[in-house]
Amino acid sequence: MKRAVALVLSLSILVSLPVVAVRADEGMWTFDNPPLKQWKERYNFEPTKEWLDHVRLSSVRLQDGGSGSFVSPNGLVMTNQHVAGGQLAKLSTKERDLVKDGFYARTNAEELKCPDLEINVLVSYEDVTARVQGAVKANASDREANEQRKAAMAAVEKESTDQTKLKSEVVTLYSGGEYWVYRYKKYTDVRLVFAPEEQIAFFGGDYDNFTYPRYDLDVTFLRVYENDQPAKTEHYFKWSAKGPADGEFVVLSGNPGSTNRLLTNAQLQFQRDLGNPLQMQVWSSRRNALNRYAALGAEQTRRARATQRSLENSIKRLESQQAGLLNARLYGKKEAEEKALRDAIAAKPEWQRAYGQAWEQVGTAYAALPKYAKRIAFTTIAAPSRLGALASTLVRYSEEIRKPNSSRFDEFRDARLEALKVNLFSPAPIYPDLEEFALAAWLEEAQKTLGNDDPFIRAALNGATPAEVARQVVSGTKLTDVAFRKTLFEGGADAIAKSDDPMIALARRVEPIYRELRAWNEENILSVDASAGQRIAAARFAVYGKTVSPDATFTLRLSYGRATGYAEDTTLVPFRTTFYGLYDRAAGFNEKPPYDLPARYREGRNKLDLSTPFNFVYTADTIGGNSGSPVVNRNAEVVGLNFDSNIQKLPNRYVYVDEEEGGRAVAVHSMAIIEALRKLYAAEKLADEITSGR
Amino acid sequence: MKRAVALVLSLSILVSLPVVAVRADEGMWTFDNPPLKQWKERYNFEPTKEWLDHVRLSSVRLQDGGSGSFVSPNGLVMTNQHVAGGQLAKLSTKERDLVKDGFYARTNAEELKCPDLEINVLVSYEDVTARVQGAVKANASDREANEQRKAAMAAVEKESTDQTKLKSEVVTLYSGGEYWVYRYKKYTDVRLVFAPEEQIAFFGGDYDNFTYPRYDLDVTFLRVYENDQPAKTEHYFKWSAKGPADGEFVVLSGNPGSTNRLLTNAQLQFQRDLGNPLQMQVWSSRRNALNRYAALGAEQTRRARATQRSLENSIKRLESQQAGLLNARLYGKKEAEEKALRDAIAAKPEWQRAYGQAWEQVGTAYAALPKYAKRIAFTTIAAPSRLGALASTLVRYSEEIRKPNSSRFDEFRDARLEALKVNLFSPAPIYPDLEEFALAAWLEEAQKTLGNDDPFIRAALNGATPAEVARQVVSGTKLTDVAFRKTLFEGGADAIAKSDDPMIALARRVEPIYRELRAWNEENILSVDASAGQRIAAARFAVYGKTVSPDATFTLRLSYGRATGYAEDTTLVPFRTTFYGLYDRAAGFNEKPPYDLPARYREGRNKLDLSTPFNFVYTADTIGGNSGSPVVNRNAEVVGLNFDSNIQKLPNRYVYVDEEEGGRAVAVHSMAIIEALRKLYAAEKLADEITSGR
Repeated sequence: MKRAVALVLSLSILVSLPVVAVRADEGMWTFDNPPLKQWKERYNFEPTKEWLDHVRLSSVRLQDGGSGSFVSPNGLVMTNQHVAGGQLAKLSTKERDLVKDGFYARTNAEELKCPDLEINVLVSYEDVTARVQGAVKANASDREANEQRKAAMAAVEKESTDQTKLKSEVVTLYSGGEYWVYRYKKYTDVRLVFAPEEQIAFFGGDYDNFTYPRYDLDVTFLRVYENDQPAKTEHYFKWSAKGPADGEFVVLSGNPGSTNRLLTNAQLQFQRDLGNPLQMQVWSSRRNALNRYAALGAEQTRRARATQRSLENSIKRLESQQAGLLNARLYGKKEAEEKALRDAIAAKPEWQRAYGQAWEQVGTAYAALPKYAKRIAFTTIAAPSRLGALASTLVRYSEEIRKPNSSRFDEFRDARLEALKVNLFSPAPIYPDLEEFALAAWLEEAQKTLGNDDPFIRAALNGATPAEVARQVVSGTKLTDVAFRKTLFEGGADAIAKSDDPMIALARRVEPIYRELRAWNEENILSVDASAGQRIAAARFAVYGKTVSPDATFTLRLSYGRATGYAEDTTLVPFRTTFYGLYDRAAGFNEKPPYDLPARYREGRNKLDLSTPFNFVYTADTIGGNSGSPVVNRNAEVVGLNFDSNIQKLPNRYVYVDEEEGGRAVAVHSMAIIEALRKLYAAEKLADEITSGR
Repeated sequence: MKRAVALVLSLSILVSLPVVAVRADEGMWTFDNPPLKQWKERYNFEPTKEWLDHVRLSSVRLQDGGSGSFVSPNGLVMTNQHVAGGQLAKLSTKERDLVKDGFYARTNAEELKCPDLEINVLVSYEDVTARVQGAVKANASDREANEQRKAAMAAVEKESTDQTKLKSEVVTLYSGGEYWVYRYKKYTDVRLVFAPEEQIAFFGGDYDNFTYPRYDLDVTFLRVYENDQPAKTEHYFKWSAKGPADGEFVVLSGNPGSTNRLLTNAQLQFQRDLGNPLQMQVWSSRRNALNRYAALGAEQTRRARATQRSLENSIKRLESQQAGLLNARLYGKKEAEEKALRDAIAAKPEWQRAYGQAWEQVGTAYAALPKYAKRIAFTTIAAPSRLGALASTLVRYSEEIRKPNSSRFDEFRDARLEALKVNLFSPAPIYPDLEEFALAAWLEEAQKTLGNDDPFIRAALNGATPAEVARQVVSGTKLTDVAFRKTLFEGGADAIAKSDDPMIALARRVEPIYRELRAWNEENILSVDASAGQRIAAARFAVYGKTVSPDATFTLRLSYGRATGYAEDTTLVPFRTTFYGLYDRAAGFNEKPPYDLPARYREGRNKLDLSTPFNFVYTADTIGGNSGSPVVNRNAEVVGLNFDSNIQKLPNRYVYVDEEEGGRAVAVHSMAIIEALRKLYAAEKLADEITSGR
């Protein structure tokens, strides 16, 4: 009897092997392939083409790494305070701390120009898969194929830019299964209208980050200008006075940054065993250095904060992602998914011939990566230091710009030079003491990790100590001066070669090592990723059709779901919080930081209707980059502003965490924004602009 | 190299084997052995004898199964609404639902007499270990030893009662390592003064039960009377106007019901593999039956609620306890503890001779238990039915009372007959339709579990169906009439034997089966528990001294700790909540039950200072039975009213869950009680009595 039972069980396991079934509310869908079927079936929602176009044209991407939306016809952009945090820090001084104290421009004249923020609107897109894939010549090696595809992509971008005058970027979807050119209208004159105190945008600090219930007013308003006038934005989201009902269908339109759901198990295993731990080391050592720097005083704290917060955020997210990979159940699911696909491919000889070898090819390639991974991670002076980044960019640019457009590193293609210059010539303040501190710490960590005989360490240190090198290059450099950077940029390779600026000299010394590693990575890993990825994508299309969304690429996507609470341990978590809860949590901790209230909130308590909804959760599939995404209802009205996820959701880099598992995205409620603007900030004018659409 | 490393590791594991070290704030301490050393070292607290006496004499035990305290010199007793819930239900009618609507007596004359509540105060205690253990004759078998000890205990109780006129009970501590006689002053005239709406006492219902943050006003005030006048209670707790500060030292004085921390692994394993699952079946089937009954209508819902709530509570607690036993780390810790003790015993030949065989003896005994466990669990009609319990008690009493005091079942010893009569002659209402429903469901479950050939099933059903039997015995019985019960009680064995009451007849039929199983259990399990338990206790005293507290026995204990929050997942949980949080949670769920507010709270919101602390948590070691315990500061002022634990703490039946692991007890804050009484209930007089001590 026992044996017979066991047999039945193992058969039923075989029968129930996972197929790639899209789970409820899963996916970050491109606008060319919205999840119309799911919307219709699950939510009885059938948008018109006009609805989709309107949502797309009302959505924006912030080049700082987040999403946003137009919320008035006068160029008013809503995003998160934490997305605009870098600009707020750059606009701050010791005397005027916009991060800490917030900001409100009562008139257009009072609005502050952001030093280096570009905002994009996706105006059109076009499938160029055939052209890019077709550019690969018969019998090309992976490396050659990679170069041929890249050349084709560069050519597409250049043509599109020339023809349309729109910023044009080729996007790789489905691990190379599709290529699309995306065309953007871009705004580079962006001004700050409103930001709240960081203490209310980020109430609960790193502790409450990625948790729920939450009580955060994580909102900032910007305005895009054209010709020194507020831009006329025909497409903008109207405002919902009520926000979402419990269980209501919602759509997000935003730019999720990066997911790894279509990776092979060999790639996942690398991330789990080496990639993620190494990334953790890199971020932690940088964060620790900033913590030590910030401990020196209040002004140092202010200077370090934006980067600290960003690193804390990344670290906390990475910890949960790694926990997901280390979770045997989750990892087993990914293995079973891959096995199911490979079994299906193996069952058809023509599929097996076309795609069957791709997985092993990836496995072989990744077996070589561990030897290089640490060198690749640490061979840079751009990661820890703004001055190092400027120097590296100038040195690299001087060499790349001499090549034809199609042969350059991606980031130096013609279509991307405008954005490059915005960054390079940004007037944002640079703090030499912080730069020196962070660069020294980075070089120490690199030295500790790579050893003294490592080529990068030898080139960077030249026999000196990390502290000596950092002091020498930071104290001697003139790169803090925008005009000096312009001169070097325009002077070309000759000016770079002759420069006696010590930071430039450091960048020159390490550049060959960097290039050697990048070339190795391009040839041995990325080109295999691309060629095998294309075949695996084709295999997936063959077996399942186009029923899953592509991995996130920091391009515009549609997510959807419903506003609903969840079960946690033995109890229930409500779908929304209210201002009551803010005061409860603050009082529960005796306002001990990070649970202290801004004075405006402590003193203005009685002005608020405390029952106003504050934050809420919903099942939509999101990830970092979706911060600032508008959450809209079926009438395309803003019901909320996406700013976070709960901790349950964080393995979502690798797998969608569904409704039953408690994965949720978190938004600021539309009513909370208006309530706070009117009652606490005396920002009636701004609130009127938002709610009246005038 | 690998081998050498492994050896070092395994040695270090040996060296670090756990000794029984009391963990911070662990223990439910008897008043003869308070944790003075820990209080001094950890909290610099050195109470006087007067402090300890005052705390003991201000504390009470409610025979309904909870704890309480005097909070005025006029006999005012504070406990939880859920502890008094049974009395509230018994005082309720279809027209006057005190559970749902609460109650407040503006004058003494309005106070309502509880039908069957006895309240005890521990007046004195005396070590009778030598007498009880010394009663065992040389070479007595376990069964004989058990009988000899029981006879000695009965004699001690009788003597003490006769001499002191106080209710006297012998308590078995440390699994038989010590025996003490506890003497109680008892109050049987107890009246209801105040109870809030259950919806605020139990806000969040079963979902939020055993969770935190919480927002429950789980308080009820009673008053003890003597000679129809409020009793003069010299010892009572004064009130703290501020409650506990974050981190403040607190003491609880209450009656924890039952823990199993000193069980052997054989006993634990039985609980894990059979005892707990069986208990879960018993409670779940009863709860499910009540759910079906309650679904019939509003009045049925009211009738079933108190028992339903109690079962829900027990089930949720049992689930977490079982999860604790199934947790490999926790279970491994218990195994390591036993191994360490047995190793220490084995290392000394005289110890090994005296105690070494005890564990195996328990193991052998428990190996026989699974065969009987289901029969023991289901062979009763008292568990599901009040009428069944009355009939069983009358039948059993008639037989036991004919034996000498020292030979009776414990619960029929002379010293306990008063309490027995209070229960037997209680005028509390009995609902025949509910009785029939519950009894039928019980007999069905028993039949399903034991089969038709089981002696209990044969005796109980007599060939009929469970539904038929239940209908026949409930519809025909006159046991709902208190006078009828008195007649049978006084009529003795003859009256019982001749009675044609069908419920009595049913009880008579199943009684022999019950007695046979009880005798088997007494001889094969309980007497081994006692004799081996005594030796294991002696072994533990020999190795560690009296450094751990005995398992809980529903007798008065001191627990202690500090009011402090904890970490959960990646964030922090505050040490206290406020009324703000109540309104946040209610609004977050749109007041969907069980998150709806009583009208008084919805409408009275603006009368409250919402920043008033509501509930708080602390590290003290507690368990069921501690409900209603006063939480006092070092001045013996009430800072809170213990009513629950968080979910992290629930494995505490088997092990103390310490501060770092997040285990916490939960109390109503002293300020919340006064704020609600004054602002929402217009109970100024009661609030004044509490705060002024007059």
